[in-house]
Amino acid sequence: MAEENDQDNSLRGVARPRAVIIGAGFAGLAAARELGNSEIDVTVIDRRNHNLFQPLLYQVATAALSPADISEPIRRTLARYGNIKVMLAEVTGIDPQAKLVKLDHGSSVPYDKLVIATGSEYNYFGHEEWRAWAPGLKTIHEARLIRQRLLLAFERAELSHDPEEKRALLTSVIVGGGPTGVEMAGAIAELGRFMITRDFRKLEPDHLRVILLEAGPRILAAFPENLTAYANRSLERMGVEVLTGIPVEAISKEEVVAGSMRIRTGCVIWGAGVKASPAGRWIGIEGESGGRIPVERDLSVTGFSDIFAIGDTALGLAADGKPLPALAQVAKQQGEYLGKALRLSLTEGKTAEPFRFRNRGNTAVVGCNSAIFDFGTWTLKGRLAWLLWAVVHVYLLVNFEKRLLVSIQWIWRYLTRQRGARLIDENAASFVPSSTQGTET
Amino acid sequence: MAEENDQDNSLRGVARPRAVIIGAGFAGLAAARELGNSEIDVTVIDRRNHNLFQPLLYQVATAALSPADISEPIRRTLARYGNIKVMLAEVTGIDPQAKLVKLDHGSSVPYDKLVIATGSEYNYFGHEEWRAWAPGLKTIHEARLIRQRLLLAFERAELSHDPEEKRALLTSVIVGGGPTGVEMAGAIAELGRFMITRDFRKLEPDHLRVILLEAGPRILAAFPENLTAYANRSLERMGVEVLTGIPVEAISKEEVVAGSMRIRTGCVIWGAGVKASPAGRWIGIEGESGGRIPVERDLSVTGFSDIFAIGDTALGLAADGKPLPALAQVAKQQGEYLGKALRLSLTEGKTAEPFRFRNRGNTAVVGCNSAIFDFGTWTLKGRLAWLLWAVVHVYLLVNFEKRLLVSIQWIWRYLTRQRGARLIDENAASFVPSSTQGTET
Repeated sequence: MAEENDQDNSLRGVARPRAVIIGAGFAGLAAARELGNSEIDVTVIDRRNHNLFQPLLYQVATAALSPADISEPIRRTLARYGNIKVMLAEVTGIDPQAKLVKLDHGSSVPYDKLVIATGSEYNYFGHEEWRAWAPGLKTIHEARLIRQRLLLAFERAELSHDPEEKRALLTSVIVGGGPTGVEMAGAIAELGRFMITRDFRKLEPDHLRVILLEAGPRILAAFPENLTAYANRSLERMGVEVLTGIPVEAISKEEVVAGSMRIRTGCVIWGAGVKASPAGRWIGIEGESGGRIPVERDLSVTGFSDIFAIGDTALGLAADGKPLPALAQVAKQQGEYLGKALRLSLTEGKTAEPFRFRNRGNTAVVGCNSAIFDFGTWTLKGRLAWLLWAVVHVYLLVNFEKRLLVSIQWIWRYLTRQRGARLIDENAASFVPSSTQGTET
Repeated sequence: MAEENDQDNSLRGVARPRAVIIGAGFAGLAAARELGNSEIDVTVIDRRNHNLFQPLLYQVATAALSPADISEPIRRTLARYGNIKVMLAEVTGIDPQAKLVKLDHGSSVPYDKLVIATGSEYNYFGHEEWRAWAPGLKTIHEARLIRQRLLLAFERAELSHDPEEKRALLTSVIVGGGPTGVEMAGAIAELGRFMITRDFRKLEPDHLRVILLEAGPRILAAFPENLTAYANRSLERMGVEVLTGIPVEAISKEEVVAGSMRIRTGCVIWGAGVKASPAGRWIGIEGESGGRIPVERDLSVTGFSDIFAIGDTALGLAADGKPLPALAQVAKQQGEYLGKALRLSLTEGKTAEPFRFRNRGNTAVVGCNSAIFDFGTWTLKGRLAWLLWAVVHVYLLVNFEKRLLVSIQWIWRYLTRQRGARLIDENAASFVPSSTQGTET
């Protein structure tokens, strides 16, 4: 088994401390950046070659942006730091005694400090078979899949001679009323209305149905009630049917069963709940509340002094003892904190103050000119919130070129309502005949 | 069998002439545009929902542009023409007696005049099994596949501890020295050098090999010899090995056999020859020279007065009796001519002059600051040709937003050498262990 860093160290003759970061999302990248150009050998391992700006992934799924607009090769993000090595590999296990991370291609990477930042995945609550018909929105692959299904449903509706089938194909169901669900519902309503009025000859705007299903008593439960009420009104104005208190019972290729309803649909999207990545198992931890790994105030995994967990996969506690939410801003702050803390301890032998989360504002966008912000002590909604949302998100995009490209596309789209990336992949060539779609299900 | 246009006509009470266009590439779209807003019912059928600006597809394959930058939904392109209907469907046959186009989903479309514009595909000269290891560059799917293989080969080389395997992974082979082959070779050399010097820690520029294999005596055989010589020098300066007179004998997953050489490689690209789409078979025509359908001077298919063929799938003749080349400019001019001619004959009962091809200049780009132009009577090469190439291609891109986005990305890349779309798709998660790559093949 080759140990990846040994050669470098032996060549230098001095053993520099080694930090390994698994996962290059918001948390992992923030930690890596803080460790950049230090006297620490850092290895970042990810099974994908790119990082992804997930808050805008819904815009890829609804044909507004291209995948490359919101992603960047991890190598490029970290290229300026000579002490950081990037590996495209899948982690298969961790040996905490030998302090080794094991990789799929047979080698292993030794660490002095290990950071687990492997994020979260969608939770189908025991119904894994729903995943095939109701993809979530975590990866570019899923975003492309949703885009394809959505656009293909419209194309099929245009060709259909059966009014009932037409209506079914133009019905989208979004399961889960969190920010992603709300954003998807609003974006699909806007995209659908635009395509029907502009590009399709045989479809009517009335045929479009967008249904947002929430099992709990209200959508956007993490936000104050007045913002939920505002989002409800906004969504209804856009033609989205918001149905709360209705859990989903079954999902098949063409149908969602929820409460007493059987909804025939052309596209189902899952946004009903997340669970932590199964990384905890690598170190024998089952995890709490959605599989999250419990961490101490210094973000070390409870019971391990050299292993840390940050971001969605970690269960950190706020100052008041409540669990921190699985949000990008938490991940980013934890990554920044941990990077600084490791640098301090590994290069200066000092101990950092415990981690403290600072709420920078929680946001969700409902549609064009409509968003909400919750800053804890005060809230913002409407057009001003939407503008702030746009500015913040462009600012947070990784590099200058992408900021410029996304800004131009947004301004162009705001002025023209055009959508930029309405691509159905080549698979569309294996077009499923509409007659096999079954009008009598 | 439902006949798609009947209802519209019966409602109007007057039978408007019906033109059907199969294929929305350069040829089909040009014909459709000329028939736009006329008193003719036009139906455009394509198996994809988007048209594609193929001359820039090599930039998608080499991570410079996103697929959406060079494609547009056909519906959107033709949205302004109220008389044109777009259908996403696969054609399964033509009934010239009943004048019907049959579609995969069971219905059929009646026509008075039929235009076949189904383009071309890569010709593997009887070795269809090579396609899996050596994709061509005709669709977005193939461009993404090439991009993925290329980037993945570099990632694997970075992880490999075997110098020979490293070198093999950094070797790309492009089969075919036409414009696409030359463009790909140049772009891969530039991308590879950039990635190695900027982003990879364990790869050396010397390890990079880009091999352009041409079976004939020289590359760019359609261009004058002085331009071939210039392109040879340009490619060599960029580090591309140009090997002519060497036909390929075998292609497998990791190896190309050509002449006496066995080249181990991480990425093979096919650009060695095209053949017409098999559309001729629909009307019982086998086709000549690469399956192209012979057409008369009015672009009607020989033996059929109501069926026309244009673009790569048609074998048209120049004024001197020589066959016209399969080029975008020929396709576009044929489409424009035929659209006008059909409009004239269907709405005014007049007959157009025979089609005449006007050479607007044939071009190929070799690399940054290096391109060639052949205008028939004079030629252009070097930086000026490259600038002209860039201006012409931005101008030819379909709509304003894309022109602007592509321009910005090109200027940005010219200044920074950065690449925008270095995305490995999610399939990379099923990362093939490098140990199974077999160093002893």
